[in-house]
Formats: sequence, C-alpha cells, structure tokens
Amino acid sequence: MGNIVKEPRIVKIRENVLRKNDILARELRERFKKEEVYVINMVSSPGSGKTTLLTEVLTRLGKNYNVAALVGDLATENDADRLEKSGARVKQIITGTVCHLEAQMIEESLENWELSNIDFLFIENVGNLVCPSSYDLGENERVVLFSTPEGEDKPEKYPTMINSADTTILTKVDLSEAVDFDKDLYYKAVQDARPGIKMFETSVKTGEGVDEWVAHLIAGRSETYKTN
Amino acid sequence: MGNIVKEPRIVKIRENVLRKNDILARELRERFKKEEVYVINMVSSPGSGKTTLLTEVLTRLGKNYNVAALVGDLATENDADRLEKSGARVKQIITGTVCHLEAQMIEESLENWELSNIDFLFIENVGNLVCPSSYDLGENERVVLFSTPEGEDKPEKYPTMINSADTTILTKVDLSEAVDFDKDLYYKAVQDARPGIKMFETSVKTGEGVDEWVAHLIAGRSETYKTN
Repeated sequence: MGNIVKEPRIVKIRENVLRKNDILARELRERFKKEEVYVINMVSSPGSGKTTLLTEVLTRLGKNYNVAALVGDLATENDADRLEKSGARVKQIITGTVCHLEAQMIEESLENWELSNIDFLFIENVGNLVCPSSYDLGENERVVLFSTPEGEDKPEKYPTMINSADTTILTKVDLSEAVDFDKDLYYKAVQDARPGIKMFETSVKTGEGVDEWVAHLIAGRSETYKTN
Repeated sequence: MGNIVKEPRIVKIRENVLRKNDILARELRERFKKEEVYVINMVSSPGSGKTTLLTEVLTRLGKNYNVAALVGDLATENDADRLEKSGARVKQIITGTVCHLEAQMIEESLENWELSNIDFLFIENVGNLVCPSSYDLGENERVVLFSTPEGEDKPEKYPTMINSADTTILTKVDLSEAVDFDKDLYYKAVQDARPGIKMFETSVKTGEGVDEWVAHLIAGRSETYKTN
C-alpha cells in the first residue's frame, strides 16, 4: 500500500491570511479579557449535535449568567433560529463557501453588542473537522465534539483538530449501544492523539453530562477572571 | 439577526489550482473511458459510513466484477485496512492537512495499476462536506452520503456539495427511529437543494438498500460504456 503525502499548494498565501487572523484574534482576546467574557469555540463535524447541546447549555447557564452565541454556517439561519429558543442573544454568520469562521467575522458580528453585558460567549463554528483548526478566534477554550455515530477513530483521523483543542465532548451517548460504540477505543484514540485532554460525555436526550460541562465552564470563567 | 457574507481571500490562487485540477481530471476521464472503468467519487461528512458501505459494496460487486478503491484521509490507514477485507485492491492516500482529494493524487495513485483490469473504481474522499465539492476527479458519478444521526437539514446547509453531486445515499436508516429522523423533511431538503437528484437509502446493519445501489452502479456502467 503506497502513501502519497501532498503539500498544500497555497501554503504561502494561507500563511499571510493566518498571520492577519492571529493579530485580529489577539485583539479580540484582549477585549474579551477586559470585559470578562469567557469565550468557547465549538468545533465538530456536521451533525454531531453542536446546536442541540448548545441550546440546552444556553438555557441552563442563562438562568444565572448573561449568555450569547454566534453561529457559523455556509448557508441557512436554521441554527440561529434553533438557538434563539433558549432566550439567549444569537447571531448567524453566513460564510458562503468558506469552511471555517475567522477572527474578522467574529469582530464584525460583535459590532453592536455590549461585551460588558456578556458573561459567556459561545461560537458555534462551521461543521467541519479540518478547516476551523487553524483559525484562532480569541477564544478561552476550544472544544471539539465527536458523536457516537461517527465511530471511535475520528480523534485519530483528524489530528490537527484535536491538537488545537482544549476539551473534547462525546455527544449522543444515549446511542452508544445502537451504533456499537466502543468507549474504551474512543478514549484511547483521544488520549493517543492528545494526552491529558479533558473529556466530557453528554446526551441531550437523557440530560446526561450537560451539568458537568456547564460546571466546567463556570469554573473556567471564574479561574480565568478571578470572578465568583 | 445580521448576516455577514464573506468573500474568500484566496479566490485568485484557488482558481488557478482548480483550473489545473480540471485539466488533469479531464485527462483522467479520458483514460477511464478508454479502459471502461466506471468511477464513483464518494463524499460525505466524517463518520457517515462511507467505509462501511463501501466494504459491503466491494464484496457484493466483487463477485462478478473487478473492483478497486482509493481512499483519502488526513491521517491513518485505518480505512484502507478495513476496505481490504473485501478482497478488493485498495490504496490509501494520506493528504496531511488537505481536506479533499485532487485529480493529481488520483493520477499518482493509479501509477502501478492496470486500468484495463478494473471495472469499477471507487474513490472514498476525505470526510468533509465542503472542500471536496470543487475538485473534479474524473469520476462518472459523484455520490454524497448523509447519515440519519446527522439530522435532516444537512442537504440544505451544504449547498455546494449537493449541487455538485449526481446521487445521494441516506445511510444508517436502521437508526432512524433512535435519532428521531424525519425522512419526509430530509427528502424535501434534498429535492429543494437539487431537484430531481436520485436518492438511495441504505443500512449495512440490516442490508437494506445495498443491492439497489449496486444495481444502479452496474446499470450506470453499462449505459455509459454500452457493456453488458
């Protein structure tokens, strides 16, 4: 069996784009820090359940905190419509043909928002396990979601994504049995790809694990900004 | 709710890359035609079940035809290892950080293969619902797979992918009930995105629909090359 290792042909230009993005992301991070906004960048493949989990988290977290969300998609405002049911402030970013969100899109989306009124800002990235990995959005925490129906080996197959992440969530654990999901194999794949990364498990259907992730976010914010 | 429509910043370079790819794809198509190889480009999001379905199809089709497969991934040879269980000739293409296969990768992979000995060549693309859409690989048929756990709205959310496809397969239909999948909604989303596109449904677990897709491929090849 032969391997063909390809070098991207557009490396140089991409490097310039990324440099620009990094500068903007740094500026965003400064603003978030100043206003004590804890920012979570959610990445995953399409259909892993980002919107469903986020709707639930916005609802639970929204009882005690000011929460907001930006959501990226190539087309449609479906996800923003779904997220708005939580009562949170939500804005859709339509990327057209671009398979990731960039710091500039975040900056433009925040133009009319008062950051001092936001405790937690969630950024639901475009459903894609490759493109979003190189784009820093100024977030405090990048979480990558894998769902049980996708199979156990995704962490191993998408190394750039898991290497750029801070946390993982295994979603749809209620389906584990129906899809013959082997959790041990998955945990091994995650830890092989990124030793020591924090791992959560959720099912919005049964409610399992959602409070644990919410508690983790509250702790993250209070550690970062020394709030109570 | 505001929209932010972004223009990709690397359009110009990408156009040149695409032009190069199209020329190579045309050459590949000529070669496939000369040797009567029917080529299927399989695209989908990660974990939709491309490899599982393909293993089954290679096994069934391999009883009467010479079948082969190329499989693209950022990392690992897992999928080639799985596909080889079918007994078919298989080659893994490792793309590194590239989120799609290109015509050049296909050409290089075929270097030591005798095309005249192949009736059906399957190309399992990198799991991604965005990047592969712009890259013609010289295929006869591009099929996009959506799995029931991904939800009904994916055809609507990934318009560039479904617009470049010839056929759709809904996979993991055995899970429909467990994931509350609404088939009518899905069919509507598919037909709204691409009116008239041919739609299949499969479950490798129950065997449902696999023979129908195999029969469609056999018919496709015999119509294209006037073989029997």
